[in-house]
This record gives sequence, C-alpha cells and structure tokens, in this order.
Amino acid sequence: MKKFSILLIFLLTALTVGAQEALWSHTEITSPEVHTDGSVTFRFVAPSAQKVELTGDFLPPRRVMTPKGEQSAAGVAAMQRGEGGLWEYTTQPLASELYSYSFLVDGLRVTDPNNVYLNRDIASLTNIFLVGGGQGDLYGVQEVPHGSVTRCWYPSPTLDTSRRLSVYTPAGYEDSEREYPVLYLLHGMGGDEEAWLSLGRAAQILDNLIAQGKAREMIVVMTNGNAALQAAPGETTQGLYKPTTRLPRTMEGSFEESFQDVIDYIDTHYRTRAEKSGRAIAGLSMGGFHALHISRYYADMFDYVGLFSAAIRPERAVNSPVYDDFEGSLEQQKRNGLKLYWIACGEDDFLWEHNKNYRALLDEMAFPYTFRQSDGGHTWRNWRIYLSEFVPQLFR
Amino acid sequence: MKKFSILLIFLLTALTVGAQEALWSHTEITSPEVHTDGSVTFRFVAPSAQKVELTGDFLPPRRVMTPKGEQSAAGVAAMQRGEGGLWEYTTQPLASELYSYSFLVDGLRVTDPNNVYLNRDIASLTNIFLVGGGQGDLYGVQEVPHGSVTRCWYPSPTLDTSRRLSVYTPAGYEDSEREYPVLYLLHGMGGDEEAWLSLGRAAQILDNLIAQGKAREMIVVMTNGNAALQAAPGETTQGLYKPTTRLPRTMEGSFEESFQDVIDYIDTHYRTRAEKSGRAIAGLSMGGFHALHISRYYADMFDYVGLFSAAIRPERAVNSPVYDDFEGSLEQQKRNGLKLYWIACGEDDFLWEHNKNYRALLDEMAFPYTFRQSDGGHTWRNWRIYLSEFVPQLFR
Repeated sequence: MKKFSILLIFLLTALTVGAQEALWSHTEITSPEVHTDGSVTFRFVAPSAQKVELTGDFLPPRRVMTPKGEQSAAGVAAMQRGEGGLWEYTTQPLASELYSYSFLVDGLRVTDPNNVYLNRDIASLTNIFLVGGGQGDLYGVQEVPHGSVTRCWYPSPTLDTSRRLSVYTPAGYEDSEREYPVLYLLHGMGGDEEAWLSLGRAAQILDNLIAQGKAREMIVVMTNGNAALQAAPGETTQGLYKPTTRLPRTMEGSFEESFQDVIDYIDTHYRTRAEKSGRAIAGLSMGGFHALHISRYYADMFDYVGLFSAAIRPERAVNSPVYDDFEGSLEQQKRNGLKLYWIACGEDDFLWEHNKNYRALLDEMAFPYTFRQSDGGHTWRNWRIYLSEFVPQLFR
Repeated sequence: MKKFSILLIFLLTALTVGAQEALWSHTEITSPEVHTDGSVTFRFVAPSAQKVELTGDFLPPRRVMTPKGEQSAAGVAAMQRGEGGLWEYTTQPLASELYSYSFLVDGLRVTDPNNVYLNRDIASLTNIFLVGGGQGDLYGVQEVPHGSVTRCWYPSPTLDTSRRLSVYTPAGYEDSEREYPVLYLLHGMGGDEEAWLSLGRAAQILDNLIAQGKAREMIVVMTNGNAALQAAPGETTQGLYKPTTRLPRTMEGSFEESFQDVIDYIDTHYRTRAEKSGRAIAGLSMGGFHALHISRYYADMFDYVGLFSAAIRPERAVNSPVYDDFEGSLEQQKRNGLKLYWIACGEDDFLWEHNKNYRALLDEMAFPYTFRQSDGGHTWRNWRIYLSEFVPQLFR
C-alpha cells in the first residue's frame, strides 16, 4: 500500500512543476465558490500584494475615461485580506447566468490560478463561472444526451483556400438515417468558428433545449466569417500569434460570396434537409450583418433568419455584388417567402439606431419580421439569450 | 469612410472591457516574440512591480525544497525593467520545440496577458509557444491537409454511463469509402480526452506525418481513462469544478474492463479496419499502464502496442480480473503474435526502474519488443517525441 502511495504521489506530481505547486500550496483553495443562494466567494493568495480587487460583469458598472471618451466598464470591488495573504470577496446573490471576472493585483489584471475555465474574446482571456437555477442552467452541461462537436476543414473555391468550421450534430445523429435541418450560426468581429461554442455555449444550449423538447433536433454550423483567415488563431500556419480585430476583408462581401461553398460542403458531408425549409441562418453583430446579406443575396435559401445586435449596412463604399440592389433583393426575399425573420437588439446597444432604421425600412416594405427588444447592450449575455429564444422557433 | 471607422471602432471594442483594454493599452506589445534564430523575447507590463521573473521549461532547472524533499523544478530568470514598467527577457537560441512558461510578479505566478495560448495540465494553466525549424514543426499547423477532430459521447454499458471521447479522422476520410486503421491513444493520471490534443499536439503530429508520407492515414481515438468520470473537467454535470488527480477507480481495472465499449462504438460509428492488424494502442504513464493491461487482457485485439513512460503493475492489491494471470496473458499475447511492442522511457524518468524490470521479464519470456531509450524524464516533451516516432511504425 505504501509502495503504491509513493508511486501515486510521483504520478500525481511529476507532470509539471505548475501541477506540483498547485497540488501542494493551493489544494485547499476553491475560487470561485458558488453558494446555493447564488452568492459567490472569490479567493486569491497574494501575501505581498498591497491591494487586490475583483472585476467582473456581475458588479455594478463604473464609468471610465478612455481615449474615445467616457465609457461604461465592468465594476470593481475591493477584496479583504485575511490570514496568510488570502484575499476574499463574496458577492450578493447573483441571478442565474454565465459570468466572467479577473483579479486586479496592485492594479495588474490577472486570471484566477484556481479556476481553469477561461473564455477568449479576441486577444483577452477571462475566467468564467456559472450560477445555476435559471437561465444559466441552459449554459451548463446537464444530465441529458449530448451532441457531437466536430472541427473540420472545407474547401472554399471562392476564397481559393481550405477553411475551418465547427459543426454540432445533435445526440442520435450518428445512429439515425434521417435528414436534419441546419442552423448556420455566425460570429461577430474578432470572433471565429470557436466563439459560439465557448462564449456562446451553443452546444450546451442546443443539448438542453432539445432534451427539454423545446427545440427540434438540428445541425448547427459555425463558420469563420473573416475572409482573410482560414481558421481561428492558433489553428493556421500563422502559428500562435496574437489575435487582432484589424483584419482585412471583413464586411466587404468576400465571406458572403463564398457562403455557397459552406452550404455545398455541409449538404454533401452531412445528412441535411437540403432545402429552404431546412435552413436557418443567424449571427451576432458582424455575423448578424452577414446573416442579413447572405439571406438576401441567396434570396431563396433560408426560411429562418436571425439578426442578433446586427450591423446593417456596409458603411463605406464597397465594390461587391453582394451589396447591390439592397431593397430589390429584400423584395425578392419577401416574395420568395420565409417563415421567420427575427431581429433582436438591446436598448443600450450602440447599433440600436441602425436596427431601428432598418426596421423602419422593413415596415415600409411590408417585409414581415419579429422584433425582440431586450435590455442591455452588445454583450454575449444577450446573444446567448437570443440564441436560446431563436432556436425553439426553428423548423416547426 | 469616417462613419464606417467609428462603427468599426465600436464593433472592435464593445465586446468586453477586457478586449477593450487589450486593444488600447497593450496593442503594441508582443509576447512571446520568437526570433528567427530561435531566441525568444518575453514582455510584461507591470509598472508597480518590484521584481518580475520568468519561469519556463527552457531555462536551466533548479533544485527546490518541497514537502517531499529536494526536487527539480523549472528554472527562473530575472526580467529587466524598462520604460513604462515594461519588463523584458530574451533567451538564448532555443532548440525547435513546444515550450511553456509563466511570469512571477513579486513572487506571484501569473500567465502572460499578451499570449492567449495556454495548456491545462490537471489544475494548472501555463502559456505555451512554439520554436520552429525542427521537431517543433511537427507540433505546428503547416500548409498541409488537416484532419477533423470530433468530441462525441459513447455508451459504456460496462460503466453504466455515457462517456466523452475525442476522435481524429485524417484529411480525406469524409470523402472516402475506405476503411481506416485505428490508434487508441491514452492519457496519464490527471489527464482526460483533451490531453493528447492540447499538451500532446496529436492532431498536428498526425496531419504533418501523414502529409510527409511518414505515417499511414489512421483514425486516432483519445478516451477518458478515469473510470469515475464521464468526461474532461467542465464537460460534465459537475460543472466548472476544480480538476483534481485524487480520483477513485484509476488503475484498478474498471477502465480496462470497459474498453470493449470504446472499440464497439468506434467500429460501429467509423469506417474502421475492425481487425487486429488495424488496431494500435498506446499511452503515457497511467495510459501506458492501461495500454499494457488492455492489450494483454484483450490478447488478440492489437497488433501494435506503445508504452510511453508507462507505469507497469498495480502496486496495491486490486480485485480485478484484469490483473490476474499477468504472465499467462502475456504468453498468450505473444503466442497470438503482434507486430510491434514499443517501450519508450527517459533516463531520468522515475518509472525507469519499473520499465527496466518489466523488460527483464519480457526478455525472460522471449516476448519480442523494441526499446526506445531517451534522455529526459516524465514530460510531455518526451511523449510528443515518442508519439512522433511510434506513429510511423504503425499499419505497415
């Protein structure tokens, strides 16, 4: 028994020094600790720090000065120093949601060494945690059948390269011979084919809504909407580079024009209902813009369209056939008929006015749509909510 | 144009405060910066820090005192403070490899906010970077056809639950009707079905070796070897919990006994060469132990076996049929015949003696095997090298 224990200790600790130190010095620390009432305790060991603060999207926002003027930023709370340099802070009970946070150690932003769950948003990594008991349960893994998620590469003759995408297939797909409808789900500027899976919790939302009988079984295809890139950062020959949003060839027609390549790949490699009534397209921000223009450009391709906090028009002169005849193609889309054109926007969204003007145009054209007004702004919180409301309306 | 720029700035910065701050204050900082000669510069902004150090597996190791006695640990180098609290350090030219590092800010271990690439090893996150021009090129994404990676769930009647696994299918699999051989690739203690993909770079190694004509096209199946778990941390109903190595039901027969469930799922859901000559099994540390015992227990299932820094025997009395008749089943495996039994171990590995004793037993039994002795110890560096040497020998 003792001999085994020694071997076990070696196996446990020999992997990396990081693992060793985690096991020896911080084993007893849990951070964050979500309590049953929804309050959350954060802990951080920093014996020599003068000040440790917590910042997160669950704290009351503050106003900060930036080079672009005064803006709203995540709130900050002071943590209390205890014995051995253990700093703590406990929140009020929080509503059920997926939240993110960081620590500020003498002003320096650091991640929580006791929490291995991080989301990447463009070039930033932020710790996450989940408060259950409500909406947040949709974002957690529940005791339900789970779909599969595949990262694969498709040829894009239009962009003259191969490109990466993520595909969710619902539980049972592999054991069925049925054809499934497809939701094409598009990310925003700075995002990629990973964004809806990590920040958007799309696989969990689909698993849970399908298991609850609230959504039909469907395939979800998450593309990379940056025509200049083949794939998410780290997944290309560019190596482990620093992600940027300063990409060429966004919102200028290239991705939209190449979208037929995506549909061709999916319809030939998955058992799809390869018809308009079996196709939905939705996206957030730049992805909403893409969904708007793709569904208009391929005016008889999608019966369901979702615009989440969407950008509406290309705001510089762009030389692309995609943006020609904006109203004419919308007219065509209307004449072809579609089952749902769903526009969602938060009252604080900086794209609110753009969406309001777009709805006025649609009203003028008697183009049928549904508008979902929400609180909040241009946030993943809203996009997860929109997805969880949009998906149950599909393929009915 | 100006209107578009303003919209663009909003789109770029409105996503999260973290993203905003990254864009505004650190845009110009690249860390790590890998130079053409293989030297690497690290940068970190910490105006109020007294001391910033770098620690990583490329620095000369140091001896540290631990509760278990003196041990080797990753080296530490002091960084130089420059203008604006920008700390820097440049290494000597490094051999081509995948490396990991952290910063120590006044003694506090933190990750690099300018590097979004992290590997998780049990409960620790560590930044990684890649130096090309040699072995490291096998671990990077190259301009070659890429396989697909799927995370899916299989039923395990033996463990009475569904469980998650990762499957690599080589480029072309989806467009072929051929049957492919399968390598079952197993992780070590504390690992899971993600470990070989992230720390082991298995998908990149396979893509690159296949493209170079050095490896046959094959499916690679990465299981979760912890019988008490369904899936990697964060992928189960346990939520976003802190990972631990203190798991029940490891190395006591449960996982080995349930392995037929894995093979059944793969052979019925993928186009496999469902025969001994089309199956290989390999693993590291605890996974090497699993590969040893599974290949012995299913004595006519695998033509190829790889033990990477393997644990050999259960070192406590375990009540499982898996470990009965150790030598008898090895005799049976030998009589059944197999094409490769490949044992790899580093000279500094704490399991060196165990492997030496095991080889002595095999010698005594005239059990044919190949031994690959390497430098170094119980590290992912070695396991990536072993995988890149093992895979070319399979399915010839």
